[in-house]
Amino acid sequence: MDRNEALALVKKQLTEHRYIHTIGVMETAITLAERYSADPKKAEIAAIFHDYAKFRPKDEMKQIIVNQQLDPNLLIFNQELWHAPVGAYLVEKEVGLTDIEILNAIRYHTSGRPNMTLLEKIIYVADYIEPGRHFPGVEEVRELAKISLDDALIKAIHNTIVFLMKKKQPIFPETFFTFNDLVKKQEVE
Amino acid sequence: MDRNEALALVKKQLTEHRYIHTIGVMETAITLAERYSADPKKAEIAAIFHDYAKFRPKDEMKQIIVNQQLDPNLLIFNQELWHAPVGAYLVEKEVGLTDIEILNAIRYHTSGRPNMTLLEKIIYVADYIEPGRHFPGVEEVRELAKISLDDALIKAIHNTIVFLMKKKQPIFPETFFTFNDLVKKQEVE
Repeated sequence: MDRNEALALVKKQLTEHRYIHTIGVMETAITLAERYSADPKKAEIAAIFHDYAKFRPKDEMKQIIVNQQLDPNLLIFNQELWHAPVGAYLVEKEVGLTDIEILNAIRYHTSGRPNMTLLEKIIYVADYIEPGRHFPGVEEVRELAKISLDDALIKAIHNTIVFLMKKKQPIFPETFFTFNDLVKKQEVE
Repeated sequence: MDRNEALALVKKQLTEHRYIHTIGVMETAITLAERYSADPKKAEIAAIFHDYAKFRPKDEMKQIIVNQQLDPNLLIFNQELWHAPVGAYLVEKEVGLTDIEILNAIRYHTSGRPNMTLLEKIIYVADYIEPGRHFPGVEEVRELAKISLDDALIKAIHNTIVFLMKKKQPIFPETFFTFNDLVKKQEVE
């Protein structure tokens, strides 16, 4: 699928603000893919579709989580997590993408998971640092992403966990398992 | 067991610095027990013995974790966690304490666990805020402990997680699960 076709499909799913964010993630993901020797074309497509399900009604997402037997833990954690695995499902079903690397990059772009692939890391970090993002800590992650994708990812997850803890929100277990997995692998290096 | 007998037993296990810390935890735990309607006598004994295993050789602690089938996850996380469950075991075996509430307060004073009892919360918080403790964030937890034991505990765990993440150390899952458990219960209230 070429970029313009993909963008046209996703534009119908998003608000203008979220579409502009998506363009930013796409450009950042391609840059990261080139920097870290991933497939830029897969990064492009995964980025374009990463928020595909963002504006689906809550009830529709809930039904998909239940009917498709996605992680039932999702339902007892923040709804912000839902659009990622639901998006992976809908992008396959409605858009017809079948590349599992791309689908997993969409699926894990909010929670992370242990043993993330290079493409999954790129989409997670690109979503965090794209130029439209402005929040405390983002600049540090942008700088880290120039040197080490893993360090950028660890810092982004760190910031996310601190942000949620300050708001006294529970942390999705996959997210801190991802943190543990990444720092343990750095210990071994 | 009376206080002096307990202190004499534990003094032999500790450095002077750690013994002074233990006295601080004991006094703080009694204050918290009175404030939050727990049993001050149990708080006293649990506090006195909370660091009983702190200076046991690493190999002895490892053997106990393996032989007594304590959580095998302990072995792949920070050794700082080991003395708490090992201490609960040794205090029962060597000192003869059998009160499960006291033993559990010792067992979970470093990791926490979901569904902590009042006594477990008191020992965790007392260990964190006793007057000999001086580190960033401790004063805020001391103030919170005057108003809400749960808020103090949540903040102490929050600080601990941030401290470990900054050092890029993996977080023991029980600690995150404790945080999630506490904030979820506050959401419901």
